[in-house]
Amino acid sequence: MTALEPTFHPRWARTVADLEPRPATGGGRAAISFAYGLPDPALFPTEALNAAAGIVLREQSDRALQYGAGQGLPQLINVLVERLNRAEGLAIRPDGCMITAGAGQAIAVVGRALLDPGDTVLVETPAWPGALNAFRRCGARLVAVPVDAAGLDTGALGQTLETLAAEGTQPKLLYTVPNFQNPTGVTTTLARRQALLDLARRYDFVILEDDAYRDLAFEGALPPSLFALDPDGRVLRTGTYSKILAAGLRLGWLLGPREVLPRLIALKDDGGTSPFTSYLAATYSLAGELEPHIARLVASYRRKRDVMLAALDRYFPRSVTWTVPAGGFFVWVTLPPGTDAADLLRAAREEGVDFLPGRSCFPDPQAGTSHLRLAFSLPTPDQIEEGIKRLGGVLDSALG
Amino acid sequence: MTALEPTFHPRWARTVADLEPRPATGGGRAAISFAYGLPDPALFPTEALNAAAGIVLREQSDRALQYGAGQGLPQLINVLVERLNRAEGLAIRPDGCMITAGAGQAIAVVGRALLDPGDTVLVETPAWPGALNAFRRCGARLVAVPVDAAGLDTGALGQTLETLAAEGTQPKLLYTVPNFQNPTGVTTTLARRQALLDLARRYDFVILEDDAYRDLAFEGALPPSLFALDPDGRVLRTGTYSKILAAGLRLGWLLGPREVLPRLIALKDDGGTSPFTSYLAATYSLAGELEPHIARLVASYRRKRDVMLAALDRYFPRSVTWTVPAGGFFVWVTLPPGTDAADLLRAAREEGVDFLPGRSCFPDPQAGTSHLRLAFSLPTPDQIEEGIKRLGGVLDSALG
Repeated sequence: MTALEPTFHPRWARTVADLEPRPATGGGRAAISFAYGLPDPALFPTEALNAAAGIVLREQSDRALQYGAGQGLPQLINVLVERLNRAEGLAIRPDGCMITAGAGQAIAVVGRALLDPGDTVLVETPAWPGALNAFRRCGARLVAVPVDAAGLDTGALGQTLETLAAEGTQPKLLYTVPNFQNPTGVTTTLARRQALLDLARRYDFVILEDDAYRDLAFEGALPPSLFALDPDGRVLRTGTYSKILAAGLRLGWLLGPREVLPRLIALKDDGGTSPFTSYLAATYSLAGELEPHIARLVASYRRKRDVMLAALDRYFPRSVTWTVPAGGFFVWVTLPPGTDAADLLRAAREEGVDFLPGRSCFPDPQAGTSHLRLAFSLPTPDQIEEGIKRLGGVLDSALG
Repeated sequence: MTALEPTFHPRWARTVADLEPRPATGGGRAAISFAYGLPDPALFPTEALNAAAGIVLREQSDRALQYGAGQGLPQLINVLVERLNRAEGLAIRPDGCMITAGAGQAIAVVGRALLDPGDTVLVETPAWPGALNAFRRCGARLVAVPVDAAGLDTGALGQTLETLAAEGTQPKLLYTVPNFQNPTGVTTTLARRQALLDLARRYDFVILEDDAYRDLAFEGALPPSLFALDPDGRVLRTGTYSKILAAGLRLGWLLGPREVLPRLIALKDDGGTSPFTSYLAATYSLAGELEPHIARLVASYRRKRDVMLAALDRYFPRSVTWTVPAGGFFVWVTLPPGTDAADLLRAAREEGVDFLPGRSCFPDPQAGTSHLRLAFSLPTPDQIEEGIKRLGGVLDSALG
């Protein structure tokens, strides 16, 4: 009558064996972790969220604790769309927006809607591993498009598209993070954004723009989003509250043509994003808390970025190079050719420091060995200084 | 520079045109709605959740507002597994449990893990439309297995399996709600549960047991779950906090073999279920609030069930029959042959009453026309009495 230890049934092996168990993430076990793009918990607006929770549960519990609309909470959609329209001079309507459990779910939903096994997806490279894995789960063929200091390399993209066309392949989708890219931190220039849209029109593919870091701009204005520059409805744009409010609420969004979005809702498979956490974010925003909070985040993350760049200058060997991000969470490090970041990670962990080896950011699992990603979002400035100093020591020993 | 009204791009039509826009749900526009299995907001434990939110945000905000584990919050998994083990004499370990955004997400994830387009899924019929749609999105072929007053008809299932075997088809999965089934309210007997497990072993398929209503038992004990009766790890069991705590938190769970569950986590695509709402449910449970709350729910829903059955006896014509659920949210009504419930719905709405026509509960979209589902969970007892009276009038007119 009791199910003690269900034995492994061989039937499963045929069906799920090729699904990789998901590695445990979190803060990492190292004392100083640069491994994940985790927001700084010291910056969570705990008191304001507690106040918002009280308001929601007193005044909106009938709806906040009930099933909600598949598209998302109308109040959150309205406040979000108004913010985007005001900040960027857009005219998005509420029916062009869907609430998701972070940008990651939006990416997965777009993949499931568009991709059949064998379809080709163009991915900026290096890329956020979560996006690569989402497209892999759709059975897609991933084709790398390089990123350099000016962002997505549209010259190389044009050549790739020509080659693909010559072999009779039409890519369905291109994935890119144009602002403060994960993992490199670079921003794609306006000219390249326009060149990308021209190529998308010429070769007829859809662009998925992941704009998770737009609000964390440390220096001046950004170019308009691809979504804003797109005249013909071929750009879907996703964003998230994970970096600017709280990742634990699992709130993100997807913008797209109003003819397309309603058809994506059922693919979320989650019965609608939590009305409760959506009400929290909407109430928090309507109280005028979000903009001053983002200003505090920008000041804090800018300082961490500055501390990391200064420490890299001080402690890293001359043969190592890195990007200089103007916002976001990440610095991308390039080691001398032939150096494997995975080997360094073992030594770094012995020193109590953690980072992400670059390999997981490449569609080709054998590529990217001489790169690593450093997230400056989580550690304190003192930890950043100390962690980079220790990493510098590891590099000095390894590069001899 | 601004994206005003993105025009519909023809490329989308080829890829998402076959995805049905999701119909808007919610309370329904009728004054008295029997249409959806919505919990009664008057029963939401608002104050206790507000207290829990205060505790979580004061004491756990570093983790509750941060990214969490893909498997789900360990504290919630522990309290959930302990509750199931205690109540049912099981020995589930935490690594045999995953937190999901309701049971619906668990069903979708299992479908995506197991099903390739063209695969055959056995579905109890009538069934919850959400499950049917999840399997349809996987491209599965749905084969109906009838449900009668004793639950899933395992005699008919045996014949169906023989027929399928003769044509060389091996079903991968069977979906069933054995307790207080949605939409019929019936419960599968112990003998039939054992017969089902025998057939699953003989024909080698996996069972997905949706146990969303187990805690809402109005009369006496239930047979053990299929998961508990299964000796060889071929049953996955899902459940939800949506009916016993708050649907708006989007919390459910999936139990299964420890060798299988880790491989399903990445398929959730949501970056892990919200740590914040998970901490709320765990804190609420650890405070000892859940069991007395469920006792209050059972008393209230039992009374609504009683009021509905008495009103059906009083107001419905003799040619109409219905099920007598011993728990859950639903009564299933059978009209005389040739009557179309969709036609009645128009007349009912004019009387301010809403229900779910049975058709959406059948794999064959042309079947089930002479059935309808009545949910007694949302309206007050007075509304139930009044609504059934009005529906009885509509039936009297229609059936003449």
